[in-house]
Amino acid sequence: MALKKEDYPISVQFDFNTGVFEPQEKSVERKVSDMVKMFHDKTAVESMIKAGDPLVYEIFYYGFKTSASDMALGTTRIQPGKVGDEYYMTKGHFHEAFDQPEIYFCVKGEGYLLMETREGEFQAEKWTPGTISHIPPMWAHRVVNTGKEPLVFVATYHLAAGHTYTEVEEKGFLKCLVEKDGKATFVLNDKRK
Amino acid sequence: MALKKEDYPISVQFDFNTGVFEPQEKSVERKVSDMVKMFHDKTAVESMIKAGDPLVYEIFYYGFKTSASDMALGTTRIQPGKVGDEYYMTKGHFHEAFDQPEIYFCVKGEGYLLMETREGEFQAEKWTPGTISHIPPMWAHRVVNTGKEPLVFVATYHLAAGHTYTEVEEKGFLKCLVEKDGKATFVLNDKRK
Repeated sequence: MALKKEDYPISVQFDFNTGVFEPQEKSVERKVSDMVKMFHDKTAVESMIKAGDPLVYEIFYYGFKTSASDMALGTTRIQPGKVGDEYYMTKGHFHEAFDQPEIYFCVKGEGYLLMETREGEFQAEKWTPGTISHIPPMWAHRVVNTGKEPLVFVATYHLAAGHTYTEVEEKGFLKCLVEKDGKATFVLNDKRK
Repeated sequence: MALKKEDYPISVQFDFNTGVFEPQEKSVERKVSDMVKMFHDKTAVESMIKAGDPLVYEIFYYGFKTSASDMALGTTRIQPGKVGDEYYMTKGHFHEAFDQPEIYFCVKGEGYLLMETREGEFQAEKWTPGTISHIPPMWAHRVVNTGKEPLVFVATYHLAAGHTYTEVEEKGFLKCLVEKDGKATFVLNDKRK
């Protein structure tokens, strides 16, 4: 029986410096205006949007869907920067499926992976190049760039995971990362006080 | 409901230079004597074993088993070298489960990822640092180090995949990689002639 086209191996070439790989299936850009609800300083959000609405992060995707499987690759590049005192970060999401984990591999930059369950467990992992984190199913996850260069990470997951952004958008994570006296500092999220 | 211990996030620290990460769950060493059937020059195999049985490659594992999932991490470091004219390589295996793919990410060195189906389709991917390959389910896979330094790659898969080595051990892959006139060259496997 002849194989279907989608059942052949595929390779892409990843650039450790830029975080981009080729070929891609699609890419997504997130600007400050895409994350209005996520950053705590609303005045800073508004003025940054007026001043040009800078890029916060990009994701590059390839979903390796075959007849029998759906493993996927995503790489993310978060720019260095802040909205007010809060560091640039990803929107963050839960997986929709209850049994879908994800592996994140930090290849460049520094920051934190924030994770939280619906029951209120919170865990933050410090990231430097080479940190590989396993995100168990049912933990929301967000990455924060606290460094001075782009933060790049590689993710593997399954398309079956699905993504839901609404809860994180409404409630945020338990803690935010802000710059205080020149240092990345955890503070309690205003919405949780 | 309190989370079980295995349902919390875990991070490890990977060294891009050595290919090792810490903490690990386990590691495996493969020497020439573990791969007697795999290399085509049996005289070279015997003399290398007598001369000290050198290390060919190592794998470092962490299986992130949770209540609902079983994603796993494996990193492999293949030494540079040859048995006779044939480059050092991994044993190679099929997954036991029919629906289990794998993603391989070459972070150091150069070589080839060889893949083959039971129906005889063969595909080889040239690897340099940054090559990320998707291995669909039901394709046997082997990595060959054709370079002068260790080849390091990071794998993500599921523990449900399982591994079966017997077929590859008996039949090999359609093609072998040997050094000819100083260059990595594909030759038909003796067992397939």
